[in-house]
Amino acid sequence: MRIAVVAPSARFSEEAAERVTAIAARVQPEVEVHFHPQCFLTHNHFAGTDEARADALVEAANDPSFDAIWFARGGYGSCRIAEAALARLGPAARGKTWLGYSDAGFLLAGLYRAGFANLAHGPMPQDAMRDGGEAAIERALAWLAARSPAALEPGLEPGARHAAFNITVLGMLLGTPLEPDLEGHVLLIEEVSEHMYATDRALFHIAASPAMQRVAGIRLGRVSDVRPNDPDFGESAEMVVRHWCERYGIAYLGPADIGHDSANKVVPFGLLGSL
Amino acid sequence: MRIAVVAPSARFSEEAAERVTAIAARVQPEVEVHFHPQCFLTHNHFAGTDEARADALVEAANDPSFDAIWFARGGYGSCRIAEAALARLGPAARGKTWLGYSDAGFLLAGLYRAGFANLAHGPMPQDAMRDGGEAAIERALAWLAARSPAALEPGLEPGARHAAFNITVLGMLLGTPLEPDLEGHVLLIEEVSEHMYATDRALFHIAASPAMQRVAGIRLGRVSDVRPNDPDFGESAEMVVRHWCERYGIAYLGPADIGHDSANKVVPFGLLGSL
Repeated sequence: MRIAVVAPSARFSEEAAERVTAIAARVQPEVEVHFHPQCFLTHNHFAGTDEARADALVEAANDPSFDAIWFARGGYGSCRIAEAALARLGPAARGKTWLGYSDAGFLLAGLYRAGFANLAHGPMPQDAMRDGGEAAIERALAWLAARSPAALEPGLEPGARHAAFNITVLGMLLGTPLEPDLEGHVLLIEEVSEHMYATDRALFHIAASPAMQRVAGIRLGRVSDVRPNDPDFGESAEMVVRHWCERYGIAYLGPADIGHDSANKVVPFGLLGSL
Repeated sequence: MRIAVVAPSARFSEEAAERVTAIAARVQPEVEVHFHPQCFLTHNHFAGTDEARADALVEAANDPSFDAIWFARGGYGSCRIAEAALARLGPAARGKTWLGYSDAGFLLAGLYRAGFANLAHGPMPQDAMRDGGEAAIERALAWLAARSPAALEPGLEPGARHAAFNITVLGMLLGTPLEPDLEGHVLLIEEVSEHMYATDRALFHIAASPAMQRVAGIRLGRVSDVRPNDPDFGESAEMVVRHWCERYGIAYLGPADIGHDSANKVVPFGLLGSL
């Protein structure tokens, strides 16, 4: 199996790539993880210019010698290239497996909207730099190479459709050409490094959007590294999600084992049985 | 003239109220500024519970003895009460003048959607606490009491329709029951205390939304207290706005004299000639 890593968002590092290569050699020796040279470009905040990031994504996606596209990391930047890059994808792209989360959610959303069948929310190469990050990389590779059931978020239900997103990213793609139809889906959400008031506001935006009121329900992953609120916000992430779900008639279905951490489990988009 | 101040968002202070009262007594002695007791409540992040904030807003709005509703300050919180509170407004509310900005944009949006005619984006009582804030309060009162042309944003065009919003607030109300129809409007936007990457992302969300592509154009107010970006974002707010306007075919119409500061000018919603 050949996996191409591209970086449509923020800067990536050689060090993270070396760690991933070493882990892959040990746990999935039959897998080749190819880091596109674009991963190591830098342009301001980003892993290269918009053009360079889009071109690398399109090149790797349309190359039939790769079986999967693995997004290097999140941060910010994929919404700047997503719509135009996805329009350039050909048949070889459609057959591939795609994996990422956080800012990569803009791309997963657009791909899901376009009918791509093998998409998942889960660990990315940059997670190799986290405490305990080796387990995240092993989990991602186990899913990419072998569809290991142990890699999956444990609450996924056979026969149900799922999708997973960062809360801010989901809010920012609603109403845009990247928004997928999530009617009937169990929606798993998570957040990192935001003030609780901003998460509350983003959840108003999501829950008050008619399309989101057609999901089967919401499960809440980890909301971590919450920025200080002065005065204290006084409500936990679970209280906030329950509030907005109740307010707009969305079923709250409990916690989810996803988040910006090494324990982040894999959530395939769509019917669980289809992967 | 009687102006009711209510606080649908974050905590307000007695000190700001005293400053506003003193300024009003000096520059508009015929105006009574009544601070609803709810302004001084506190509940976590907010000026009282959702119920208390909504009840005060509805009570003041429906009281025919007041000519105007002046939102005390922004911060966060009005989206939690806006839809339900606006549904409780009667005929006396519709005839009033309404003034605020920042988080109060959720309410101005919903009121404009509901056809309220006398709404404006402009200084709030909390601005009395800013350096040079006295000028902002005098400007607001000059507009509320006398529709002083000197209070207006200088680029507003007679015969054109306008609206003004904080960028984050506008993004978070798109697609919700608070979103007004801004087709053909000159849209003035401003931002405060956000990372530039977050402003770029919010402008993707706004510009990529089909309803926003029907505005007459966008004018950019001040984007202030920009949070540090590591690495540097490398693009100014104007570059960011120009980028997204060009990308999605929206006219960029230049700078605007609004922002989270004492110089913030008044932008009446709708046809300038109608006020």
